[in-house]
Amino acid sequence: MTIEIVSESRCFGGVQGYYRMQSTACAGPMRFTVYQPPQGKDGRVPVLYYLSGLTCTEDNATIKAGMQRVAAELGLLIVVPDTSPRDTGIPGATGDSDIGEGAGFWLDATVAPWSSRFRMETFAVEELPGVIAEHFPADPARAGVLGHSMGGHGALTLALRHPERYRSVSAFAPIVSPSRVRWGDRAFRTYLGEDRAAWAEHDACELVKRRPFAGTILIDQGLADPFLGETLIPEHFEQACAEAGQALQLRRHEGYDHGYWFVSSFIEDHLRHHAGVLAG
Amino acid sequence: MTIEIVSESRCFGGVQGYYRMQSTACAGPMRFTVYQPPQGKDGRVPVLYYLSGLTCTEDNATIKAGMQRVAAELGLLIVVPDTSPRDTGIPGATGDSDIGEGAGFWLDATVAPWSSRFRMETFAVEELPGVIAEHFPADPARAGVLGHSMGGHGALTLALRHPERYRSVSAFAPIVSPSRVRWGDRAFRTYLGEDRAAWAEHDACELVKRRPFAGTILIDQGLADPFLGETLIPEHFEQACAEAGQALQLRRHEGYDHGYWFVSSFIEDHLRHHAGVLAG
Repeated sequence: MTIEIVSESRCFGGVQGYYRMQSTACAGPMRFTVYQPPQGKDGRVPVLYYLSGLTCTEDNATIKAGMQRVAAELGLLIVVPDTSPRDTGIPGATGDSDIGEGAGFWLDATVAPWSSRFRMETFAVEELPGVIAEHFPADPARAGVLGHSMGGHGALTLALRHPERYRSVSAFAPIVSPSRVRWGDRAFRTYLGEDRAAWAEHDACELVKRRPFAGTILIDQGLADPFLGETLIPEHFEQACAEAGQALQLRRHEGYDHGYWFVSSFIEDHLRHHAGVLAG
Repeated sequence: MTIEIVSESRCFGGVQGYYRMQSTACAGPMRFTVYQPPQGKDGRVPVLYYLSGLTCTEDNATIKAGMQRVAAELGLLIVVPDTSPRDTGIPGATGDSDIGEGAGFWLDATVAPWSSRFRMETFAVEELPGVIAEHFPADPARAGVLGHSMGGHGALTLALRHPERYRSVSAFAPIVSPSRVRWGDRAFRTYLGEDRAAWAEHDACELVKRRPFAGTILIDQGLADPFLGETLIPEHFEQACAEAGQALQLRRHEGYDHGYWFVSSFIEDHLRHHAGVLAG
């Protein structure tokens, strides 16, 4: 599959690029960014997928998370996809921060008309990694996934659903029980319909109890996050992991909120966590 | 003078804030950001002013340059002002990337109607530092200035014109001889009129020959910068510094372009340069 180079710039000795591809999964163009570390010149390197939160494009984390410096040091290739297809023309897909464009929830919608375009799980898990392996010096056998907020939900659920694809996983302020909170309930109803059994397939708290992830899950959560008490509720996941025997490192940080100033403050620890697993 | 808090977020143990003030110099509201390092809780710390380039607001460098991590380590307070007043209503002040809003050129316009609002030198050198000293734990006696492109021109000219205000200076891809190149010629004509003696007062190559800066000037320049040969021409400044006996560390970087991927790759060296001077 061909990709279109939107831009490429030297950064920390590697290359920060913006790209576009025609996605079969999402039946239209999809955008993503790739940071190639300097070590990529000498062979394939571990690859990390960063999944972003509600309203984000591929640009937010790329410019705000501050991953490139550490990725260059550790030799990690970083991929940041957009959070949904764009310009879908689907009624209700624009202008709603919780549903539609910018709110793909990292799953394949099964309800029409969403099911024709909003297939972010297939895109992120299968199609995009294929393109990355074809065009970039990434080793698909050494892949990890991390994400923020809705993207934290994405990282946890995709890693738990596809353990053969990801060897490491971490999240910032993730939505861990979307079936039970505002950020999730509406999206699941819209994308998956009313069958709650289908919802459980995309709820990290449910998934981890069925099959834990082989390795420690790292989660950072700010204690000044305005969404902490009503929609994030990390205790739900803490309890589910305890029941499941899942190794979890959940760190709570006094004074930090939900934004990228929080993510950037701790991103280095996440990249080192992934590199530690993927180095082998 | 009061300031309005737009937002404040914990970041690397300190606080990243966005603020607004009523500027007397610019006869209207002006925006700026401040990063307060954790050391600011214990007393006044050195302060660095980052001056941005054409089209930038206070947001670009704040989110893209990646200064906070190193500032937190070194105990530097970082101030990023907007590059001009906004919503001035002056004919021709919007929609032109080289003149007017987003293109203040870090000088006081003397030609009407620009002279009523575009007084970025007085704002940056006098008014803003007064506000910073009043509201933040900054030590005005330990101030440095750095900038990028048009802001590199700003950093060099303000440091050379006001050596009593700044003890350290550095720049990324600065416009060093605005009197002689497209990025400058038009702005100087617009803001300062046709008297070339007035232009020389805002041209780093001219200023350094009259009175060198007491300390090494650090400049980074990318060799894949599309503006390198025709508008930046660092050789002009290199030659002027040689004539003036000015200590200059000009570093040329293969493959880097004009953008923030370049700035962020080397910002740590700049902050360490400033901290080394300002620590005393």
